[in-house]
Order: sequence, then structure tokens, then C-alpha cells
Amino acid sequence: MSRAIQLAKKAIGKTCPNPVVGAVIVKDGEIIGEGYHRKVGLSHAEAEAIKSVKDKTKLLGSTMYVTLEPCNHYGRTPPCTLAILNSGINRVVVALEDPNPRSSHGIDVLKQKGIETKIGVLEKEARELNEVFITNIDKKRPFYALKAAMTLNGLIAVRGGNSQWITGEKARLHAHFLRSNYTAVLVGINTVHMDDPLLTCRLKGKTRQPFRIILDTFLKISLSSKIFSIYPRKILIACGKEADSDKQRKMRAMSAKIIKCKAKDGRIDLHDLSQKLFSLNICSVLIEGGSLVHGSFVKEGLVDKCFLFYGPILCGSHGAFNAIGCDAPNSLSQAPRLTDIKCRMFGEDILVEGKPCSAG
Amino acid sequence: MSRAIQLAKKAIGKTCPNPVVGAVIVKDGEIIGEGYHRKVGLSHAEAEAIKSVKDKTKLLGSTMYVTLEPCNHYGRTPPCTLAILNSGINRVVVALEDPNPRSSHGIDVLKQKGIETKIGVLEKEARELNEVFITNIDKKRPFYALKAAMTLNGLIAVRGGNSQWITGEKARLHAHFLRSNYTAVLVGINTVHMDDPLLTCRLKGKTRQPFRIILDTFLKISLSSKIFSIYPRKILIACGKEADSDKQRKMRAMSAKIIKCKAKDGRIDLHDLSQKLFSLNICSVLIEGGSLVHGSFVKEGLVDKCFLFYGPILCGSHGAFNAIGCDAPNSLSQAPRLTDIKCRMFGEDILVEGKPCSAG
Repeated sequence: MSRAIQLAKKAIGKTCPNPVVGAVIVKDGEIIGEGYHRKVGLSHAEAEAIKSVKDKTKLLGSTMYVTLEPCNHYGRTPPCTLAILNSGINRVVVALEDPNPRSSHGIDVLKQKGIETKIGVLEKEARELNEVFITNIDKKRPFYALKAAMTLNGLIAVRGGNSQWITGEKARLHAHFLRSNYTAVLVGINTVHMDDPLLTCRLKGKTRQPFRIILDTFLKISLSSKIFSIYPRKILIACGKEADSDKQRKMRAMSAKIIKCKAKDGRIDLHDLSQKLFSLNICSVLIEGGSLVHGSFVKEGLVDKCFLFYGPILCGSHGAFNAIGCDAPNSLSQAPRLTDIKCRMFGEDILVEGKPCSAG
Repeated sequence: MSRAIQLAKKAIGKTCPNPVVGAVIVKDGEIIGEGYHRKVGLSHAEAEAIKSVKDKTKLLGSTMYVTLEPCNHYGRTPPCTLAILNSGINRVVVALEDPNPRSSHGIDVLKQKGIETKIGVLEKEARELNEVFITNIDKKRPFYALKAAMTLNGLIAVRGGNSQWITGEKARLHAHFLRSNYTAVLVGINTVHMDDPLLTCRLKGKTRQPFRIILDTFLKISLSSKIFSIYPRKILIACGKEADSDKQRKMRAMSAKIIKCKAKDGRIDLHDLSQKLFSLNICSVLIEGGSLVHGSFVKEGLVDKCFLFYGPILCGSHGAFNAIGCDAPNSLSQAPRLTDIKCRMFGEDILVEGKPCSAG
């Protein structure tokens, strides 16, 4: 099952709106076949694993380990239950029950047909593997990960907004790797004004680029922003309904997509935005600042995961920008807590990962 | 030498104003004796190690490993060089040259008398072991360590000052262990007003209590503060020269010591305070907040080490207290950087240790 999870991981960020799935076929203690779901529209992990076994007679009496309950419906591909039943496999071990009601009951069908089944092996790992898919199904909105690079006392920029660079090269490289795992990255208009970022994934050999979402209630973005210089079709600008329609036309002419949202007090309604992004098949979003954008997502309880990078800097906070720009609670008991804290180092930088307790 | 360092560590915080020193005597690949300097006034590590060897004939032709260059002067105890020369030891391996000019040249004396010597083994570790002593000698002031417990975005208290508790029990226990390693702990008057702390070391079996220093320019401390309820002779209150002399008398009557310092803009001059603390044999100070006190020490470049605890909380910053309450720099290149970053976890809390690049 560890191997199946390892295989599934290869496709993180590529299967949206499908889950990532890996499958391994074992006979007499040896792996005879394996596969994973590479991309939406391509065949499922189970079919891939079966296909990988050259000598089909070996499949008789073999066991399949699969990270997610096999589907039992005709969609883009035929049901996996059928492929398994036709293969000769006589035992199926599943990590995680399919949280999607539309495709579930695959395991029941296999059982009825006399296949020995087991469910729940490495379930926690499999759940983590499909945190995006599970959030999509459960909450009917994109999975939101908050990413910030800050000083050791939580500042993402000093006076005047200077934030380059708080962290070193290794940490920034990992941040690009994170971009490659998400359908979209998101920033506020202030970040565009201050940093003029490209927001692309600049890892060697990576070809899939994330969508770039900009929260810009009043459509203040400059047409000469660097972001327009590359992949203009992958730009989504969320603005209020009152935003200048002439500017909207200009943006569209540059191939950017305009998402008109409800707004309040000059800020985009994030729940409304969520629905609109989800209907556009944006399954996961990496929120990359700035302070007020992070604050809004935290305030609305819309953070599912955090990637907090710390550079080895400790400096005065007066006049600087804190990672979370919204009102502090009146007591610590009201403060949002994280769990599943993980900590690793990139040179002298630290990455802390965690999940809000209310999430997932 | 590792064993010698291990022995020396037992006395951290107890030997002030002396260094901590450990010594091990080896003959034919076996440890035949060991000792460390336990407390100021008691015998040195070298003498302790020699004393620990019951059969003195074994000392002939043996090697001593000692973490610091043996002294060569008569102080509270006779010179260690003499003890070595009289013992029969014929080889001395030293980790760190003595940074104190008054007691140095011990190694030269040994060499002249025909003892084989070597210097620099595990020097980095030995330097760290005596970071307090080295700072005392080099800078002629106490060693300052900044300790803060904060949220993951650098807040030490939310609205209204609530800070109990950001970190969990294991982290707080470690903070008490840190107190036991320092001559004194230091807080500002706002922390006394908000938290009314005891500032004692509440580890079982620990008897030595740190001095408690309060920065209180205008002597606003309440006579009913909990801090007066225990070890009143271990309270030092730093106030400005204009502070109410009647209140000063009352404080003294309660056994607290008043340190009158220069003050500017309502804040104690930390360089003046440093001189006064040092003359009182306060070798090391653990700075425990709050925000403005940390900010002042950072601004004055008076931080030698940081212990930054993070509780798994991510909350809004507006109206909250940042760990470092002083003006932010205008650019990141002017921001104080830390080095030697170490990271460990206490349950779901994180402790990051580091040293300002300019320090030691």
C-alpha cells in the first residue's frame, strides 16, 4: 500500500477534479503490476495496474492494493470494478472508502461477486493524499492552502512592503514545487503592486502552470503588470460588480478571465468567489498573500492547510506587515489553532506545516 | 573530550562569574578520573579530576582532556597548572584557549615544563558551552538571551494582553529549565501588570532560583504584585533616577534591590543597566518580555541568543502584541539576522534557537 501511495503522489495537482489514485498488484509476495491515475480523462489506476501485467495468467489469484475504493460507474472510463472482476484478481485491499457518493459502493459490488475485500489500510495517509479531493466533495469548494514567507516574528514585509527575500533559495525552490501541486495560486492586488510577480512555477522540467488568481475589487491592476507577460489565458481576476467595465473589456482583450463577485467594504466575498472558482474546476488554491488576503481567508475559516516559511530574521514589527492581517481575537481561546504540525529545514530557513483544527 | 563537555554542562548557570569546565583523565584508553567545576569558590575541574583518581600511581603517563585551558594564577584556588605538573600527567588536550587574559598562558607553562599539549579539540562545542563566560569577558556585560512564546505569526499576546497559554505544558517546562541556566530573568513592568508572574524556576529538585529583574522606569509596580511573595531578596528593580524616592524606600524595605539607571523617553538605558548588572555579578539574563522590552534589546543590539517558542496558533494580528515591539527597518538588508538555527518540537509546539549574526 505504501508503494501504491507513492505512485499516486506522482499525480498530485494533475488529476483535478478527480482524486489521485495508485494501485499495485501482488502475487506470491511479489509485485507483478502497478499503475496510477495520471491525469483527468486518462485511465484509472486499477486499469493501469492491470494493463501493466504482461502475462495476464499471473493475475489469477492475485491481490490488488489500491489507495481509493474502486469506482463502480461509467464516466470518462468504464467502471474499475468491472476491470477487476474480469482480471482474475481475487482479493482487493483498499486504503480509503470513496467519499464521493456518485462513485461509491464499488467495494460492495466486488464483495457480492465473491472477491475478498479489506478496507482501511494506511487510511490516514490515503486521506492526506486526497485532502484536495475530499475537501472538494465535502465542502463543495476549492481546497485552500495558505503559504507565507516571514521573519521569525511573523512579518511578511518590512516598512514600505519590502519582502525580497526573507527566505533563501532552497525554501523558495520548494515554494515553486508547491505551486506545481495546486490548480491555482492567489494573491491580492497589493502584492501585485508591490512585488509585480509572475506567479509561475519555475521548476525545471515542469510544464503544467497553475492558474493565477488576483483579488482586485476595484480592478486597479496595471495593464503593464509582469503577470500579463506570460500565460495570459491562465489569469483570473476577481473583482466587484461595480468594477470599471471598460477596464474589464481591456483585461478580456488580453485573454484574462474576469470573475465578478459580491464585495463588501471593498473586499471580495470569499464564499462567493469559492463557488465561482469551484464551478471553473479550480480544485486547489495556494494563497500567497499579502497580509490582508491571508487575514480574510483566516477570518472566514477558509484555510485548509498552511505552509509557513521562516527566514532567520528577527526585526522590529512597528510599521511592518504581519502574515495575518485581520483583527486579533480578544482571548487566546478564540484563536484558530493548527494541528498535525510538521517542521523541516531548508538551509537556515524553517518550514512549518499545519492544518486548522476545524478543517478536514 | 565529549565526556568532559558533558560534565561541564552539569554546572551551567552555577559557576558565574567563572566559566564551566569539565576534565577527564585517560590512561591506556580508559577513563581513570573525571571532574568538573561545580560552583564558584569550589575547586576547578582539573583538581577535581585528579582528586577522583584513588590510586595516584595511575596518573603517571596519563592524558588529561579539559574543556578550557588550565589556569595559571592564584585566585580562590591554586593554579591548575601546578596541580597537573605535580600529578604525573604527561599530556594535556584542551578544547578552548582561555579568553580571559588574566588567567591565560597556562598551556605555555605546561609546554615549558615538558608536558605534551594540544589545543582546539571540539573547540566549537566548548565555545558554545561557555558562551556566557566568553561574552562576559569580551563585552564586559551580561549575556542576554531573549525568550518568547508566540503564535506562528509572531504574536506574544492577543487583544488586551492575554498570553496564557500560547504554548503547551512541555514547552513551558523547558522554559523553566532555561530559567535554571541563567543568573537572572528580566521582564518589563507591563508584563508584571498583565501577567503578575512569579518568575521563579518551578522545576522539581532545582533549588537555585534566578534573580528577577524588572524594568520599571517610573516605579509603577504594585506592592501587592505576586513577585514579592517569594524570594524578595532576589528582586532587582531598574528604575529611572527620577523615580519616587518614597516608593524606592518601600521597595527596599521589602528587601528588593533598586538599580537607578539613566532613562530616555521613559525607557531604561540598557547599556547603563548592563554595566550595573555586570558589576553585581549578573552574568546571564533571560529576557522574558514583553513586546517593548524585546524590541528595546533587539534595537540596541543586546541580544546574544534567542529561544523562540511557537504555539500552534495562527490568528489575526491587528491589535495584538508582536514578539518584537520596535520600529521595523526600511529594508530587509537592514534587518537583524540569526544564524546557527536549531529547531525542535515539544508536542505541537516548536522551539527555534538562534544567535544574532553580529553576536559572539
